[in-house]
Amino acid sequence: MSKIKMNQNIETFIGCNSTYDDAAIVLFGAPFDGTTSGRPGARFGGAAIRRESFGLETYSPYLDADLADIKVYDGGEIELSFGAPVPVLKTIYNYTKQVITDEKLPVMLGGEHLVTLGAVRAIVEKYPELVIIQFDAHLDLRDEYLGQKLSHACVMRRCWELTGDNRVFGFGIRSGDKEEFAWAKDHVYTQKFNLDTLDEIVRKIKKKPVYLTVDLDVLDTSVFPATGTPEAGGINFNELFAGINKVCELNVVGCDLTELSPPYDQSGASTATACKILRELLLSLSV
Amino acid sequence: MSKIKMNQNIETFIGCNSTYDDAAIVLFGAPFDGTTSGRPGARFGGAAIRRESFGLETYSPYLDADLADIKVYDGGEIELSFGAPVPVLKTIYNYTKQVITDEKLPVMLGGEHLVTLGAVRAIVEKYPELVIIQFDAHLDLRDEYLGQKLSHACVMRRCWELTGDNRVFGFGIRSGDKEEFAWAKDHVYTQKFNLDTLDEIVRKIKKKPVYLTVDLDVLDTSVFPATGTPEAGGINFNELFAGINKVCELNVVGCDLTELSPPYDQSGASTATACKILRELLLSLSV
Amino acid sequence: MSKIKMNQNIETFIGCNSTYDDAAIVLFGAPFDGTTSGRPGARFGGAAIRRESFGLETYSPYLDADLADIKVYDGGEIELSFGAPVPVLKTIYNYTKQVITDEKLPVMLGGEHLVTLGAVRAIVEKYPELVIIQFDAHLDLRDEYLGQKLSHACVMRRCWELTGDNRVFGFGIRSGDKEEFAWAKDHVYTQKFNLDTLDEIVRKIKKKPVYLTVDLDVLDTSVFPATGTPEAGGINFNELFAGINKVCELNVVGCDLTELSPPYDQSGASTATACKILRELLLSLSV
Amino acid sequence: MSKIKMNQNIETFIGCNSTYDDAAIVLFGAPFDGTTSGRPGARFGGAAIRRESFGLETYSPYLDADLADIKVYDGGEIELSFGAPVPVLKTIYNYTKQVITDEKLPVMLGGEHLVTLGAVRAIVEKYPELVIIQFDAHLDLRDEYLGQKLSHACVMRRCWELTGDNRVFGFGIRSGDKEEFAWAKDHVYTQKFNLDTLDEIVRKIKKKPVYLTVDLDVLDTSVFPATGTPEAGGINFNELFAGINKVCELNVVGCDLTELSPPYDQSGASTATACKILRELLLSLSV
Amino acid sequence: MSKIKMNQNIETFIGCNSTYDDAAIVLFGAPFDGTTSGRPGARFGGAAIRRESFGLETYSPYLDADLADIKVYDGGEIELSFGAPVPVLKTIYNYTKQVITDEKLPVMLGGEHLVTLGAVRAIVEKYPELVIIQFDAHLDLRDEYLGQKLSHACVMRRCWELTGDNRVFGFGIRSGDKEEFAWAKDHVYTQKFNLDTLDEIVRKIKKKPVYLTVDLDVLDTSVFPATGTPEAGGINFNELFAGINKVCELNVVGCDLTELSPPYDQSGASTATACKILRELLLSLSV
Amino acid sequence: MSKIKMNQNIETFIGCNSTYDDAAIVLFGAPFDGTTSGRPGARFGGAAIRRESFGLETYSPYLDADLADIKVYDGGEIELSFGAPVPVLKTIYNYTKQVITDEKLPVMLGGEHLVTLGAVRAIVEKYPELVIIQFDAHLDLRDEYLGQKLSHACVMRRCWELTGDNRVFGFGIRSGDKEEFAWAKDHVYTQKFNLDTLDEIVRKIKKKPVYLTVDLDVLDTSVFPATGTPEAGGINFNELFAGINKVCELNVVGCDLTELSPPYDQSGASTATACKILRELLLSLSV
Repeated sequence: MSKIKMNQNIETFIGCNSTYDDAAIVLFGAPFDGTTSGRPGARFGGAAIRRESFGLETYSPYLDADLADIKVYDGGEIELSFGAPVPVLKTIYNYTKQVITDEKLPVMLGGEHLVTLGAVRAIVEKYPELVIIQFDAHLDLRDEYLGQKLSHACVMRRCWELTGDNRVFGFGIRSGDKEEFAWAKDHVYTQKFNLDTLDEIVRKIKKKPVYLTVDLDVLDTSVFPATGTPEAGGINFNELFAGINKVCELNVVGCDLTELSPPYDQSGASTATACKILRELLLSLSV
Repeated sequence: MSKIKMNQNIETFIGCNSTYDDAAIVLFGAPFDGTTSGRPGARFGGAAIRRESFGLETYSPYLDADLADIKVYDGGEIELSFGAPVPVLKTIYNYTKQVITDEKLPVMLGGEHLVTLGAVRAIVEKYPELVIIQFDAHLDLRDEYLGQKLSHACVMRRCWELTGDNRVFGFGIRSGDKEEFAWAKDHVYTQKFNLDTLDEIVRKIKKKPVYLTVDLDVLDTSVFPATGTPEAGGINFNELFAGINKVCELNVVGCDLTELSPPYDQSGASTATACKILRELLLSLSV
Repeated sequence: MSKIKMNQNIETFIGCNSTYDDAAIVLFGAPFDGTTSGRPGARFGGAAIRRESFGLETYSPYLDADLADIKVYDGGEIELSFGAPVPVLKTIYNYTKQVITDEKLPVMLGGEHLVTLGAVRAIVEKYPELVIIQFDAHLDLRDEYLGQKLSHACVMRRCWELTGDNRVFGFGIRSGDKEEFAWAKDHVYTQKFNLDTLDEIVRKIKKKPVYLTVDLDVLDTSVFPATGTPEAGGINFNELFAGINKVCELNVVGCDLTELSPPYDQSGASTATACKILRELLLSLSV
Repeated sequence: MSKIKMNQNIETFIGCNSTYDDAAIVLFGAPFDGTTSGRPGARFGGAAIRRESFGLETYSPYLDADLADIKVYDGGEIELSFGAPVPVLKTIYNYTKQVITDEKLPVMLGGEHLVTLGAVRAIVEKYPELVIIQFDAHLDLRDEYLGQKLSHACVMRRCWELTGDNRVFGFGIRSGDKEEFAWAKDHVYTQKFNLDTLDEIVRKIKKKPVYLTVDLDVLDTSVFPATGTPEAGGINFNELFAGINKVCELNVVGCDLTELSPPYDQSGASTATACKILRELLLSLSV
Repeated sequence: MSKIKMNQNIETFIGCNSTYDDAAIVLFGAPFDGTTSGRPGARFGGAAIRRESFGLETYSPYLDADLADIKVYDGGEIELSFGAPVPVLKTIYNYTKQVITDEKLPVMLGGEHLVTLGAVRAIVEKYPELVIIQFDAHLDLRDEYLGQKLSHACVMRRCWELTGDNRVFGFGIRSGDKEEFAWAKDHVYTQKFNLDTLDEIVRKIKKKPVYLTVDLDVLDTSVFPATGTPEAGGINFNELFAGINKVCELNVVGCDLTELSPPYDQSGASTATACKILRELLLSLSV
Repeated sequence: MSKIKMNQNIETFIGCNSTYDDAAIVLFGAPFDGTTSGRPGARFGGAAIRRESFGLETYSPYLDADLADIKVYDGGEIELSFGAPVPVLKTIYNYTKQVITDEKLPVMLGGEHLVTLGAVRAIVEKYPELVIIQFDAHLDLRDEYLGQKLSHACVMRRCWELTGDNRVFGFGIRSGDKEEFAWAKDHVYTQKFNLDTLDEIVRKIKKKPVYLTVDLDVLDTSVFPATGTPEAGGINFNELFAGINKVCELNVVGCDLTELSPPYDQSGASTATACKILRELLLSLSV
């Protein structure tokens, strides 16, 4: 029996009405943005995605598939301590651990990118061969940032510590300091600016369990302005959709979408885009 | 007698200063958004387009043509009842009816997409062979929505009832529920995601009278965030301009631009884009 | 047994966690703004109040009372048809009818002010002696508006038709057309600009069942800018709190808060204020 | 002949539909903000007031008077050169000159406060005894500002040069540099912070022709945030209304409202407040 | 040698151009909002106050005093780690310690209210008799919040641990949970809602060294909407100014202004108000 | 002696910490928008770029180069008179003159596009063979605009008066009136809509001294909405970056970035994009 508390008061992402027990996928939010160095607000990302999902259909004409036909439990936003990365990551770890113990696929909504570490810590225990695919504008490979090891700017470095060399594959990367790029060459795979080599990489890692982390700032600032650190020169929606769909051909054992920052989304277009990406991700994981 | 120039304080779309009698084209606004299910505000769309048009030139370097050289009467926003689709559509019908009776071309500014129905009702009476070309992110083919038959989500279904099968041609479509897409296959033409087959369709319907309805959400959310239901993965400005220009090679007997929602346009870029599309539409209709 | 569907997925107003069966008060949202003549958006009011209530405490230092100690069921937002006042009012009527049949006190969150009519129609059936106290900037006493009888601008006229003369008491009124003010003199009580005579009126109607409708635009625009038709010269928070508290000395059998329009609340201060007023209202009704 | 009502698409302030010839009052806008040192945007003030006036009634319950019963011609926004104070002031001078030559009362909408100078230059020629009453947060009495003599920060100094000592009466003043306050003591009347001595001053200048200039930043920032240089500690709406009404007991020969800056008015409350003040001003001038 | 003036591009609060050595007051910013439970953004508060101070004059007509005549060094924003309260408070402690060791008066700009603790830790070491006067909407007396002891919601409890009973005096308080209010009765002084008893308290603590902490949410939401947790029913600008001025009659040995959150200040009015309060505070400390 | 680090509170563009004497490049801001005919606000552009540059890295993965390795002095915003183009241009001229006299490369941040004229006046004196490359949506070739010769709409015409025919090369142009386009044919080079012929032009002018002026509205409105006159159909970030980089192969003797208008940048994405373009420009000028 699951130890997850059955929250009676959540507002679910459209079409994600399965019970926990029936679900193949468990969606949950990790509303933390405590280490954001730019503009905070990602804590509100998951709730906004859930709320604005009413503007979407459950059906995808891209995949000819429907959320109504798959089993997703939406666990809502988990409660996290403000200003305290250590217990925050522990809570995320525990939640993810329970989900994978129950043989379900966790899909986490950030929050800032650091939340990925909590999930990866749990998943790598079950899948020591874990490979991580990162769609992101930023390398996030610093060893520390402003004296802190637990920072969004260090999250992939911390993940690398768990997987070892040649197991982190970054795409769309277009920002980092000189040392990060130098360090990256020796330890991780980096496809700068776009997803051009994704097919090739996907072929290579076919058998491995995969964690997919999507920092939504991989999108161009025109497509996704409402994020903590917008970075011009990114990919568009169709490219991100194709990339996610490609990765979902692999054995994906966990994934996340992070860094939507609703306070910077006056038009609502970024939130709507995040909703659509989540729908396509959930369907891609299921078909 | 006073020497003060009698400024009539008329606010028209830039360069649209013809009298009604002299005009070949009659531009008017239908400020209704009463059935909007997402975010209302399209009622302010036409007035915003008119007001912000001062930021445009009357001359188009795309078409080497100038609004100063064509005859457009701008009738302003017509007065509509709030919260009452039936009389609203009747008022739009009457206005359009008069314009076409007077042998002028009606160009309507929404408002939400439902307003199209009022205009089509009038036009199909005069042109029973009418073909409708729809640029839109959404199918809008539901038979009813939340119990209502007169809804933006049903507008093309209602139009289809007036024209019959194979007379509605949708382009750029990327949203609808499963049933709508299934129904669409049997009754209307649907080009998903883009305008790729537009040339081909235009060749086929060469002799028919055409109504062109442009739901501006056919544009990508990056280009046009300020709309009631933004939908990622759309076309860009150049593609829409080319599409409109292509359609204007046909015998266009009426058209509209709908779904600009100014309250979601803090930057003003969506409104400016709508203004430019209207200029190119008016010129394309005239050259 | 109640016929109200136990919605498993609502997000409640802070501290309103009672089951329906245990509850003395039933809070619900009526997300309709279809007749708004100014700036629509009130449809999002109830959901925003619920969502932002986390910024409040459950305890009121004004009343030395705590939401944790009273029994409120939050039924969430009820589903309403867009653009169709008749079925909308019927749905609200039905919901309210059920609540009062179950001997609970309905507290409705708008939405626009027209929603009041749906609730009053149900309540006046049970309490034919019903008196209505209206806190509002606007008279809302037109017989029709732009050809419609069901409009926010006519809501109190429609209510008056149900109660008859001298049973509607308006306070804080500072807008209406000349005819409305003239008509008002003969049929309703009007305290212009403020609540100065409220105590006196409360003494007079001591025994009567009372419906309290609070159009939040009774507040000054400085205190509550995010409303469809902001009107300068209103009352402040302390005055509204005191007024509500005073009315709650009476036999209140139903009430509502309407006209928060979140799209116009960039700072969030209006929503936060509405949350606090709701807390004080719920506590005032209970102590 | 067409049956379409020839909507001239005229946008006037609500109820100001008189012809120029019939009018007793001429309302016009001076859309200039070229010397604004803080946040520009006041150029859009007049147009916003006109546009948003539909949210008002024509009837004032404060004065029991109606715009429908008075004769105001709304001349719209006059065309002004950007970035060139000298011709801008000349254009305003010419317009005002014509209005007063035609024996009508000019009411000007800014724009920034410098526009007052153009009007005063014309009016003081006709009324050499002119007294100026200024409601304002700022003294605006600098001799020059950043090297310029024609600046919003100098406008009352320039006006004083036209009237001489003891003819400018400032109220609500709460900002200026030390030298301005020192200079003011010898040359103008200054009531700091509020309008407390207005009655007394009004009694004193009973017979004189009066120009009333209302810089809307005299209002508290809570009431009127959308202005170029918001200054806390101001008066509220009721106080400003009472002040304007009091001044209108005098022989007012010209007046203006300036410094609404719509780009800073996301909620729309400042614009709505400016509309209401203009209605009360027009009615106060007429009754 | 170049004739270009070597503009060091220093951005200070207006008029605060003293060198550190000459200064009597040291102004500095503590850009931390990591424990904010509501809406983050206060990290940008200090920089915004500095930047927007150009809209103010250096002269105060309230105090007839000028920043040009006093000696304030503006140290800018100190660099703080994100997401790590312990080192953040240590950095603030060190900075404050140095300032008071150098016999200067520290004035800190938040950031969130937790930053007060860093300053108080330093100051109470030098002044063990320290009394704290708190202007605030919230008690901030929780022992812990969401499992954390270092939280904005606990800051005054942590301060109380340093001073002991009857040494913390709160004014304007209108929010807290039931337990906080109960605990407060035994340990601190609380003036609910306003500053009514301030004069009396000031008389009592005349000889004691005083730390003044101003959480700007003590202001009413109409006056100061742009804060993390807006709370209706607060005081206005004139009341806060008078309160600060009164406290400055005492032996103030340190002070702070916290909780301006610029992302929620579209109009800029809250920032402008914070600037003016800082000017009056600096002048009140000096005269 | 105090141990506090003497933070001079200097705010420079990230990594631009050289002294003036050591610098090869001098960056400075020209905060003027007095002739803006659309939406003012560009005066705040340079300061916003500087402030938000902290969200960037100093390292460019595009150029494998780092701001830390080049010598740029950031002179901050120069002080300009509001509302007075003549002295404004003189001040810019003087500043630029000094920079080039000192054998340094000036990089100016607008402000509106007119500021370019001040810099070009100085530079053309030293380099009479000067060629100007203009990236812009608008021709800006009017002889006068609303009666003014010194207007953003005339800036390239004024520059042409300094260089003569065939020395101004415009790219990305998609707006102007009919006469401007006609005039342009005889006097300047115009590549409409994009940068397609840039390589060819660059080859042709290889030996000439070049001034590069980038009006950021050359970017598509999706990429750069926050500008005074947004114009759909522009280029994207990668295209602009490539274009700037190509021009920097030439002998660039001065350049500018103009027309970021921060008040229209609620999301911050336009400002972030401008920051990145400036980094790439500075690095391209140096490698």
